[in-house]
Amino acid sequence: MKGASNKARLGDPKHAVRATRTAGRQMRSRLLDAASRLFKERGLAAVSIADIAAAADAFPSQITYYFRTKEALFVEAACRDVLYVARAAEQHAGKQLLPSDYTRALVDSVMATDAVGFFVEAMTLTRRRQDLAPLVERTVERLHAEGLRAYAAEMAARGWHSRLDPETSARRFWTIAIGVTLEGQAMGRSPDELAAEMLRLLGPQADAPPAARLSVVRNSAPDSASTSKEKQR
Amino acid sequence: MKGASNKARLGDPKHAVRATRTAGRQMRSRLLDAASRLFKERGLAAVSIADIAAAADAFPSQITYYFRTKEALFVEAACRDVLYVARAAEQHAGKQLLPSDYTRALVDSVMATDAVGFFVEAMTLTRRRQDLAPLVERTVERLHAEGLRAYAAEMAARGWHSRLDPETSARRFWTIAIGVTLEGQAMGRSPDELAAEMLRLLGPQADAPPAARLSVVRNSAPDSASTSKEKQR
Repeated sequence: MKGASNKARLGDPKHAVRATRTAGRQMRSRLLDAASRLFKERGLAAVSIADIAAAADAFPSQITYYFRTKEALFVEAACRDVLYVARAAEQHAGKQLLPSDYTRALVDSVMATDAVGFFVEAMTLTRRRQDLAPLVERTVERLHAEGLRAYAAEMAARGWHSRLDPETSARRFWTIAIGVTLEGQAMGRSPDELAAEMLRLLGPQADAPPAARLSVVRNSAPDSASTSKEKQR
Repeated sequence: MKGASNKARLGDPKHAVRATRTAGRQMRSRLLDAASRLFKERGLAAVSIADIAAAADAFPSQITYYFRTKEALFVEAACRDVLYVARAAEQHAGKQLLPSDYTRALVDSVMATDAVGFFVEAMTLTRRRQDLAPLVERTVERLHAEGLRAYAAEMAARGWHSRLDPETSARRFWTIAIGVTLEGQAMGRSPDELAAEMLRLLGPQADAPPAARLSVVRNSAPDSASTSKEKQR
């Protein structure tokens, strides 16, 4: 659709600007993809601008044109990754019928990727490079705001009751994800162990109304032992 | 006392070994003090082994003899700092008569220093330098174990009731301290803001028995409004 209407307006000077913008966005995105992959594999120090340009089939000057420095590209790639993983986790968790399953699905999704570890490295960079802090700051704020929006919508749609005020719940989710990831790097924890530790520290987030719990148990869990377990979450 | 007894045994060959060990410990400690100060001021990359040796009135070869690399010295200095701050915080908080004041005193003490930020940088280093992970791992385990010991002793001595199992409480305290510190670096938060955010995410940790609350209110807080505030914590 978009392609067809663009074709009809090839002579339009406004179109030329738009086409350049689109090409620019595509190149930026390709550079970010390549950078993200290489940085996660090898770390900031072991990756050069030339490596990223080669992997993205681009020129080093294109990286400095779009991102100025390797460190700025590192931070932007990490911020994009963690926001992407957060959205995917919310979509995955949104299918769950019980608060305990919702929290577990969120935690499993987030901890299964390396995105929080990558973001933690970007956050650490800002300690000595305050010029890189604003993007990280906006990303933290977006994680909190989008987490809150998703969580509040879930509570309302399912009739769940949040144990903490939802904003504190959303902020605590990300702070604990960050803390657990950083500790886990030193402890050599696997993604499963990270997820288990995070669930332990989060504790029960919300309660379903008794009717919802019963109907789920009746429909999908024939053994009665699961009822008391679900009540705890 | 120790000096006097050492003097009497100057000819003892065992004493010579002990004296060498003591001198070694003192030099190690002096190098760690200087390293901690410089690293916190300028960060890992901006400090050289020669800078630390000069600040400690030592030779660069003494640093490599005791610590092998600058990174290993960085990690050891950061681990020592955070354990020291944790102990000082427990001693400071131990004087408080209410659970809410205990938690606040702990949080204020820990967040008033740069020790968690320094430790966070050491943890991040281990992501790419797994050879440095064991000391960080032992430090995380000691923070958890000593936090649990102090918290459990406080609960028992004051007759407080912990809302979470005490081990989870102790682990969560440090994970949230680490996450809040890392986020705070990017958000440009002051120590007071870090402490407020940490208190918010921790929430109420424990409850005092009603009798203890009443006696504190009667002894120290003539206005009745504080009673309901204390009950919430």
